[in-house]
Amino acid sequence: MNEDRTYDIIIHNGAILTVNADFDVVGNGIVCISDGRIERVEAKTTGKPLPSARKSIDARGGIIMPGLVNTHTHAPMVLFRGLADDLPLMTWLEEYIFKAEGRWLNPETVYSASRLACAEMLLSGTTTCCDGYFFEDSVAQAVQESGMRAVLGQGVVDFPAPGVPDPEKNVAEAMAFIQKWQGKTPLIVPGIFCHSPYTCSKKTLKQAREAANEAGCLFQIHVAETQNEVKQIRKEFGISPTQYLESLGILNDRTLAVHAIWVDEEDISLIAKRGVGLSVTTESEMKLASGVAPVPRFLEIGISVGIGTDGCASNNNLDMFQEMDFVAKLHKVDNLDPTVLNASQVLNLATRDGAAAIGLEKEIGSVEAGKRADLIIIDTHKPHLTPLYDPASHLVYAVNGGDVKDVIIDGRVVVENGVVLTMNVDEVIEEVEKLGRKIAS
Amino acid sequence: MNEDRTYDIIIHNGAILTVNADFDVVGNGIVCISDGRIERVEAKTTGKPLPSARKSIDARGGIIMPGLVNTHTHAPMVLFRGLADDLPLMTWLEEYIFKAEGRWLNPETVYSASRLACAEMLLSGTTTCCDGYFFEDSVAQAVQESGMRAVLGQGVVDFPAPGVPDPEKNVAEAMAFIQKWQGKTPLIVPGIFCHSPYTCSKKTLKQAREAANEAGCLFQIHVAETQNEVKQIRKEFGISPTQYLESLGILNDRTLAVHAIWVDEEDISLIAKRGVGLSVTTESEMKLASGVAPVPRFLEIGISVGIGTDGCASNNNLDMFQEMDFVAKLHKVDNLDPTVLNASQVLNLATRDGAAAIGLEKEIGSVEAGKRADLIIIDTHKPHLTPLYDPASHLVYAVNGGDVKDVIIDGRVVVENGVVLTMNVDEVIEEVEKLGRKIAS
Repeated sequence: MNEDRTYDIIIHNGAILTVNADFDVVGNGIVCISDGRIERVEAKTTGKPLPSARKSIDARGGIIMPGLVNTHTHAPMVLFRGLADDLPLMTWLEEYIFKAEGRWLNPETVYSASRLACAEMLLSGTTTCCDGYFFEDSVAQAVQESGMRAVLGQGVVDFPAPGVPDPEKNVAEAMAFIQKWQGKTPLIVPGIFCHSPYTCSKKTLKQAREAANEAGCLFQIHVAETQNEVKQIRKEFGISPTQYLESLGILNDRTLAVHAIWVDEEDISLIAKRGVGLSVTTESEMKLASGVAPVPRFLEIGISVGIGTDGCASNNNLDMFQEMDFVAKLHKVDNLDPTVLNASQVLNLATRDGAAAIGLEKEIGSVEAGKRADLIIIDTHKPHLTPLYDPASHLVYAVNGGDVKDVIIDGRVVVENGVVLTMNVDEVIEEVEKLGRKIAS
Repeated sequence: MNEDRTYDIIIHNGAILTVNADFDVVGNGIVCISDGRIERVEAKTTGKPLPSARKSIDARGGIIMPGLVNTHTHAPMVLFRGLADDLPLMTWLEEYIFKAEGRWLNPETVYSASRLACAEMLLSGTTTCCDGYFFEDSVAQAVQESGMRAVLGQGVVDFPAPGVPDPEKNVAEAMAFIQKWQGKTPLIVPGIFCHSPYTCSKKTLKQAREAANEAGCLFQIHVAETQNEVKQIRKEFGISPTQYLESLGILNDRTLAVHAIWVDEEDISLIAKRGVGLSVTTESEMKLASGVAPVPRFLEIGISVGIGTDGCASNNNLDMFQEMDFVAKLHKVDNLDPTVLNASQVLNLATRDGAAAIGLEKEIGSVEAGKRADLIIIDTHKPHLTPLYDPASHLVYAVNGGDVKDVIIDGRVVVENGVVLTMNVDEVIEEVEKLGRKIAS
């Protein structure tokens, strides 16, 4: 190692949970960062000074880990956080959510709400999100300003939607979004978000798939979320939602299928064979009582699975640490087996495997030399994180988003000692509080 | 109202979630406290000055609510937080937990660990816990110093246990604990904690029940936690664990049965008929893959149900806000019905109903004039709690323990702006970190 050079950032005095292929944990480690990339990850040599760096971050005995990858969000829905809960699915959707979306969404409200969502994600350790919604251009603007990394897709449905009153133009709008954002900034990767097999026609699905293929983009879609959806698709087409998408040529390794709860062994084989990535949104799926996805089986068969929070109308926060806790515990009790989905496996889903599910596995998802520098530091000097035997256990079962101390994305410090550096959070809160008061009245 | 008098404390500028019988929420409320009791709970009158008080607490637009009641803890087990996870139940218990308990528990370590547990509970809004463990005298000492309220039971099992090498003396030791602490301080209510129907003989169970009856104490016991337990008791006695306890005269309205997962309709009727209180420990039961208790049925039939975290070896924190979130969501997905256990019902379990389950319903569990002043204030000025439409929804689905700003117990401020006033938390953390390093090596 050349010890004469000066790095941009050095992080030291923490245990590094690398989430590399061997899931190495470096007891007292250092991470050196330059030009947005991780350059060195190693144990601190006793008695030797730290490599020099323009900025030094002391992890204070805490945990250094890859930033969390939230593989399914509808960021602007923070606007409807707690607006309606504990209702039958169709009442919730049709009487509350669709109405509120129709009435309150516009480029300005989506921008404000997305800023709030970014603040919330950054403060709770999420460095990358994969989002799909309407007015996605406003989401992209907010994400860009916040310093987050994201895969973003403009929503496509076959009925009049916020910002897209004429469904005939849904795919064109989504393509325009891709064209605007592709290559614009390294942190934002545009894609397409087709809502579902039951809200999009065959024609729309195929057109959207073609558009994604042409642009080399991720194609996001909700699949097999409820028993009703499966019934409806089976009634109409005689096959399962997954098989239906296969029949249209939708499934490939640039596809992210979200939920995948009501899938049978044939569907699962198909997902694996086509290299489709999955996103499970456990808290939301529990709250909406959609069902329990067969996650242990997905992993067994080698499917890339990421964890998502879903939107805040059905969660009701974007805390990926809580999400990990739910994932780990739900599948244990669902299988009546406490060895199912151990802490390391779940951490892998929330970082490395999640990155793979959305096509960013070469760039992010682990603390390894050569990867982009997306890292977070956990403050473990708290009663609920004492003592510390095993960082992985703490991260899944004891930490929550409020324990995140620092966040670095692409080599830039965006949260320092619990303060977001890229926006005035008080101002953002006030803005959305104002909107909330209007919506409530 | 006599406006001339000066209260000890006034809390103002927050929404009061009273958890009274009507679940009233007071939009902009004030709470006046004197001599450890709540004296007034009402809406702030516009234009009128606040009643005078020696201490004024500004809730800053947050939520004022009853302190949380954690109905099942083994507080000193924070010492083993994350020591062993994701293992088959018997391996976890016999290879790790029992061995660690045998080797590391003594009055000093239990005292240190209990102090840490109290700090963790206070900081996350728990004002009362119902605990059962060994060296419970050390737990009581730590609880008393922390300013918490607690129902505490010395553990009874029919094998050599930490501090009780001779099982013949188990009930006598538990009685000595009761005698020492009964009436000693208003905040500590001693009881007895018989481990379970499968670790205590008929004789022990009966003796312990008699001791509890004589002292007028709560009798805590784990019941119907695993399918194995049910099999074992059925094999030995031909009846279910619940029926077995009934046959010994154990079940009455001074009994707290913990877990109650594998209970049939006959067991449930018996629990209701005898006025037994229940404690469910959802996160722990999920992590250990014990099963899902039929909580909606318990509530339907009118049983008092409290929420507990269980010990930190199987949770792995004492955060009752997270626990509420798990309770609300698990039963929805388990019943495939999103209307099961709404936010208000779950809040009721964590406060008012929990207080009833442990026999303290006359004193605590709601913000009402006449009750002891056990209250907490939630800081909602955070991205993940914006906007705020419905306090109950936020408390169950979005808040976590780190959002607690102030804690008042029996009219005494024990946490102020996130700082514990009754102990030096840094010192406590350091002490348990040291113990943790010894245990790890």
